[in-house]
Amino acid sequence: MHRLTPFFEPRSVAIIGASAVAGKPGCEILRNILANGYRGKIYPVNPKGGRIMELDVLSSIGELPRDVDLAVIILPAGATAQALRECADQGIRYFVLSSGGFAEVDAAGARIQEELAQIIRDRGLHVLGPNTSGHTSMPQGFTSTFFPQGKIRRGRVSYIAQTGNFGTHTLKYILTGEHFGVARVVGLGNKIDIDEADALEYLGDDPETAAVIIYIESFKRPLRFLEVAREVTRRKPVVLLKSGATEAGRQAAMAHTAAMASPDRIVDGMLHQAGVVRVSEYTHLVLAGKAFSMLPLPQGNGVSFLAPSGAMLATLSDFCTHLRLHIPPMETENVKRLQEISPSYIRMRNPVDIWPAALMSGVETAYREGMEIVLQDPAVNAVVPVLMLTRETGMPDPVFIVELAKKYPDKPILVTFSGAKDCMDEYKAALEPQGIPTFPEPEQPFEVLSLMVRCYRAMMRPR
Amino acid sequence: MHRLTPFFEPRSVAIIGASAVAGKPGCEILRNILANGYRGKIYPVNPKGGRIMELDVLSSIGELPRDVDLAVIILPAGATAQALRECADQGIRYFVLSSGGFAEVDAAGARIQEELAQIIRDRGLHVLGPNTSGHTSMPQGFTSTFFPQGKIRRGRVSYIAQTGNFGTHTLKYILTGEHFGVARVVGLGNKIDIDEADALEYLGDDPETAAVIIYIESFKRPLRFLEVAREVTRRKPVVLLKSGATEAGRQAAMAHTAAMASPDRIVDGMLHQAGVVRVSEYTHLVLAGKAFSMLPLPQGNGVSFLAPSGAMLATLSDFCTHLRLHIPPMETENVKRLQEISPSYIRMRNPVDIWPAALMSGVETAYREGMEIVLQDPAVNAVVPVLMLTRETGMPDPVFIVELAKKYPDKPILVTFSGAKDCMDEYKAALEPQGIPTFPEPEQPFEVLSLMVRCYRAMMRPR
Repeated sequence: MHRLTPFFEPRSVAIIGASAVAGKPGCEILRNILANGYRGKIYPVNPKGGRIMELDVLSSIGELPRDVDLAVIILPAGATAQALRECADQGIRYFVLSSGGFAEVDAAGARIQEELAQIIRDRGLHVLGPNTSGHTSMPQGFTSTFFPQGKIRRGRVSYIAQTGNFGTHTLKYILTGEHFGVARVVGLGNKIDIDEADALEYLGDDPETAAVIIYIESFKRPLRFLEVAREVTRRKPVVLLKSGATEAGRQAAMAHTAAMASPDRIVDGMLHQAGVVRVSEYTHLVLAGKAFSMLPLPQGNGVSFLAPSGAMLATLSDFCTHLRLHIPPMETENVKRLQEISPSYIRMRNPVDIWPAALMSGVETAYREGMEIVLQDPAVNAVVPVLMLTRETGMPDPVFIVELAKKYPDKPILVTFSGAKDCMDEYKAALEPQGIPTFPEPEQPFEVLSLMVRCYRAMMRPR
Repeated sequence: MHRLTPFFEPRSVAIIGASAVAGKPGCEILRNILANGYRGKIYPVNPKGGRIMELDVLSSIGELPRDVDLAVIILPAGATAQALRECADQGIRYFVLSSGGFAEVDAAGARIQEELAQIIRDRGLHVLGPNTSGHTSMPQGFTSTFFPQGKIRRGRVSYIAQTGNFGTHTLKYILTGEHFGVARVVGLGNKIDIDEADALEYLGDDPETAAVIIYIESFKRPLRFLEVAREVTRRKPVVLLKSGATEAGRQAAMAHTAAMASPDRIVDGMLHQAGVVRVSEYTHLVLAGKAFSMLPLPQGNGVSFLAPSGAMLATLSDFCTHLRLHIPPMETENVKRLQEISPSYIRMRNPVDIWPAALMSGVETAYREGMEIVLQDPAVNAVVPVLMLTRETGMPDPVFIVELAKKYPDKPILVTFSGAKDCMDEYKAALEPQGIPTFPEPEQPFEVLSLMVRCYRAMMRPR
């Protein structure tokens, strides 16, 4: 058993500082746990006793049974050490410390945190936080987040974040604006005990996790992290956003977590050697999650795309080159087949100018036949249809794309658009629940593909 | 009078090849003209005669009166030369040639195009196209586009595009997905006569045009374009996307317009010297349009942003550095004022960690007071609030941002978000019609600001 297993698969959990007052963290955490269908035992603790959300409240930690796997402590910083000790006396060894007010705040907070560290060492405890927005484990329907998240969608990617922002606002965006879900989410907080290396080690062996996406400001044990990463990246993609790449970013990161950001260039080279794929934009955390949730990895950097406009073919060709994606010439036979579905005046090639074919035989037929031809070409590892959608020019049933994806399961299909916003939204809503990711901006599928190719190469790198 | 004036301000227009059949270009163009409230005279011409959309149809070009300003010819390529001659016989001197089938297609098409060129020279005609998706002039409620566009929103930016894609699909996206509109749009087509230099010259003097955004694959008269651009860029922003920056892009551009793309590095240096700001992504054509439609130019690269998360402050600080945006330290007095609206445990600085203040005094109060303080700082030229919006944490009335923008008219405010998608959409719908642009991804306001700073510097460059 990994030392993080009780966090992700707790059979019972105590909420120290449970509350009946909506909006209070001690209330929202209970709401979240219940909303996600957690089937283990829940023990709310509050000196007032009574009942909260039909759960009996224990009026003291001393009343807890001896078999509690995990305790979430949501008390003011000053009361946390005492609660930790009392819980340890009850035999609890695994903790989430949710409150802020520790080393991230001031010297007094740092002293409290040092006291906690001493208790952890003395009693052999395992602690996530403090100052963490919690963790989430969807296979078990469990979460320790107190941000009003409600039902969280289960998925195949897991996140490790040295920021409360991810498990709160960004996850909220994913749940309201996207169609993919998460397996596990870990908010690292002040990393008094558990750090990114521990979390990556657990997720690396986790059969529920197909890819790991990390936001980090500083490495607690850089060498251990790299050691773990070197192995995990051979089994699954590991994508990382590290802020503090510039002086301005370093200063902002320091103000945030009071941790000195690690020197960037050294970090960069070491991450690369360890097979970790680094990204530079916060938005990539979401885009990468969407891609890994839905797609196989492309087995090379050969890309084909079909667009309704020469301007898009040209600008996206430039963009591919900048991203080191290759637009391979296709086999003669396939070029001939493309030519057959298209008017004779246009000389077909990769990338594919699809609109003349659409005018000749309809939007759906042209895209379906064109996509199938390029999917069959051995030099093509991934396909991006730029779909032209307006009510006036026709809205084909998007199911043909789902069928193509099923027929060619090894080649990722990433959809983007040109045309009317409402049509794009309709396609997104139809395709994404079927496992076909869509991207509102035509550059995004290529950014994502570039990322995935880097992950594939990391996975295949020689020992 | 500029030679393009009759295109943008026609008092009367003939549609050669008008049609009553919905979906046919000769029908959709009439629909578009009527939908946009054009008040000049419209003369549809079709051998069948009769009436289309309550307009009398002339059965031959010979029946046209002598005072027609502009003729749009939508006939098969092979019939275009004859129609051009007949119109010229009727005294018409300005033409839009909408059909394709000329030099962009094959040698036979090229020969027809050469014949057209000869007629144009012999008769002293002014011609847009052929193979153009038309042009649009919203101050006059006129358009020659045959793409089913319907009512086009009037705005302050104008576009020049060497692709049919812009005036069709991309404009459709702008009309359905954004809240800004256009002044003029020119689809250059095969540039048999009128080219990008002519169009830029007209738009440079056009009081309806606050900024010019260009998509181009090749320059017909590079030196003339640069000569015009050198002057126009001192008066208004000129942003340009030129494809063919890479070999893959050049090949795709050649397949598109049969024009040899201009050598990229030379072009790049010359554009820069002429004050033209070059962008690299198709999406930037839309983002730039939104920004120039709504915002003043920032008078320097000093930016402040307020975010609800240290992770965003850190990653966006890195991003600003990459974009050469400066995050200036603020005046001591302003730092003190920021400190006053915030809990004491957090040391306030630029960029602004706003969430502790929001927890203390509410989301609206914190953002409003925080934004006002940074807007007043002389080192800050633009402000980006990253608004944290969820139903659970509160949705303040966005009017406070509109009020701040009115109070500080010289400093652009660009809004982005963290949180729930439906809340972001609600804010976009509320703010953009009031002239405050919003961006779904947190990196986008900074990309746009970087672009605007470059335009401002081009405008202010010494002679």
